[in-house]
Amino acid sequence: MSPYNEIPNSMKVIEISHPGEPEVLKPTTRPVPVPAVGEVLLKVAAAGVNRPDVSQRRGKYPPPAGASDIPGLEVAGEVVALGEGVKKLKIGDSVCALIAGGGYAQYCTVHESNTLPVPVGFSMIEAAALPETFFTVWVNVFQRGHLKAGETMLIHGGTSGIGTAATMLAKAFCVKVITTVGSEEKRQASLALGADVSINYRTQDFVAETLSATHDKGANVIVDMIGGDYVAKNYEAAAMDGRIVQIGTQNGVIKELNLRLMMVKRLLHTGSVLRPRSVEDKAAIAKDLYEKVWPLLAKGTLRPQIYKTFPLEQAAEAHALMESSSHIGKIVLTN
Amino acid sequence: MSPYNEIPNSMKVIEISHPGEPEVLKPTTRPVPVPAVGEVLLKVAAAGVNRPDVSQRRGKYPPPAGASDIPGLEVAGEVVALGEGVKKLKIGDSVCALIAGGGYAQYCTVHESNTLPVPVGFSMIEAAALPETFFTVWVNVFQRGHLKAGETMLIHGGTSGIGTAATMLAKAFCVKVITTVGSEEKRQASLALGADVSINYRTQDFVAETLSATHDKGANVIVDMIGGDYVAKNYEAAAMDGRIVQIGTQNGVIKELNLRLMMVKRLLHTGSVLRPRSVEDKAAIAKDLYEKVWPLLAKGTLRPQIYKTFPLEQAAEAHALMESSSHIGKIVLTN
Repeated sequence: MSPYNEIPNSMKVIEISHPGEPEVLKPTTRPVPVPAVGEVLLKVAAAGVNRPDVSQRRGKYPPPAGASDIPGLEVAGEVVALGEGVKKLKIGDSVCALIAGGGYAQYCTVHESNTLPVPVGFSMIEAAALPETFFTVWVNVFQRGHLKAGETMLIHGGTSGIGTAATMLAKAFCVKVITTVGSEEKRQASLALGADVSINYRTQDFVAETLSATHDKGANVIVDMIGGDYVAKNYEAAAMDGRIVQIGTQNGVIKELNLRLMMVKRLLHTGSVLRPRSVEDKAAIAKDLYEKVWPLLAKGTLRPQIYKTFPLEQAAEAHALMESSSHIGKIVLTN
Repeated sequence: MSPYNEIPNSMKVIEISHPGEPEVLKPTTRPVPVPAVGEVLLKVAAAGVNRPDVSQRRGKYPPPAGASDIPGLEVAGEVVALGEGVKKLKIGDSVCALIAGGGYAQYCTVHESNTLPVPVGFSMIEAAALPETFFTVWVNVFQRGHLKAGETMLIHGGTSGIGTAATMLAKAFCVKVITTVGSEEKRQASLALGADVSINYRTQDFVAETLSATHDKGANVIVDMIGGDYVAKNYEAAAMDGRIVQIGTQNGVIKELNLRLMMVKRLLHTGSVLRPRSVEDKAAIAKDLYEKVWPLLAKGTLRPQIYKTFPLEQAAEAHALMESSSHIGKIVLTN
């Protein structure tokens, strides 16, 4: 391992003092982690805030075995130390990274294969807003959902971090995008971001609107983090041979579901969670993203939507904002 | 079209006089159908009886647009007349065929591309027992479910027509087979047919038994025609990256389902119904079957399980038997 030039022994982090409301997020001090074989130590410049962080804070999404108990699934920062066997990265490199936890901190470790370069022209804040949403959208919508040019995608939560990333990515790949959102302001924001059709689910029926926008054919891919009563409606809004990718279940368990439409339309319903996947799995996704999406970022075609930043110490305020659902785009913590 | 040598103008059929119990199946007389472009007229020797016929009799599964109202989805017989443009078949050929309706009759028409030769050494009765189950198993388990050698398949209704066909096909392709059945007699029959493990769902917990039989890994592919409360259990019995193919919903709608396991295990839940698919779709399946499965039939590796035959006039008795669920294998009507 390289010498720890100017690296302190301890660092500031935000820990979950106990399960509960945003106030349980407390600044405290922890030892700076030591990179294992193949890992690098990052000096965190910015860390994205995501829904799973909120679930973890509430005690409903425990970190996978071996992961830090500190929340935070994505960061951007500078490589300040190398573990044994690191091949590609060197001290001073600016990267963003998908991590299994530990992002709400001044330092964190990550396997070099789970990092991507900060795209040309991107700030650290913008780069920190990429990994969780872009890995999630890529693996679920493009790899598992097989979204193709010329198809139509319906995405719920169109102005969420995932929603904005999926909208931009789908548009970059010549897909017609339909979003659902919860207010007229968000509807305008989603359209401005590139959505072809945006539906206010509080005043409009998303099944009817989706069918109407697709000449009654329905959506080829539906991205859903809602679950519950949305599932049956997704089956109605889907096209023949449609793919429904479940990336969350905010509305809880399904109370009633008829699988007849799944069979008649030959639907494919799948889903995945990113966090517990192996370093190798995440490395493969990173490689695919680097080849197919990073060139678009460098060109300026895609730019993450940053709604608001907070200093790390104000992680509780950042969580309160996320839970208010009044944000449009990503919330990021800065050091 | 070729001349109708010795083909009468009218024929005996079994019609559904009105929706109801088996007794509503009544012998009557209808005109012999005329083959359209690309179609042949078959003199039906034998017709398979299937669950969808029962649903249709009950008024719950109306024939698709353009299909005969006479029940019967599979037949074997002799080609006795050719429509315009028929290229492969000739008068006198013995074929079995997947049809969208009209099998409970002395004659029926079918597009030549939806026929397959009667396998060498097979009786007409055995050949009539092939199309519905083999097309269904092939498209769902192998094409949609991507079942591969070395994997484990769990199939419910192990001694049904679908269950016996799936068991034999999976064993022929070097798959470990676990079945569920409703009696000790059926359990023995399923094991005799080749199942590695057979579970009596009345006395055993199929989730626990499946996990136990797979070193807690679960089944890679689950074939389910039950639905309802089986769906959540299927998610529990499935392996990581498992595929669940829904080919029926005998237990009705789902009353409660948590999609968390679908995401954590990255399950793929899909399904399809065969009957409304286009002639072209069915022709593509027939071609695949001809290349990959028909050689095994000719070798004698696979042989459909015939439980009982009835003369066409006794279709009502055949339905009563199927609804008793006491049969093991296929029920076939003969002319």
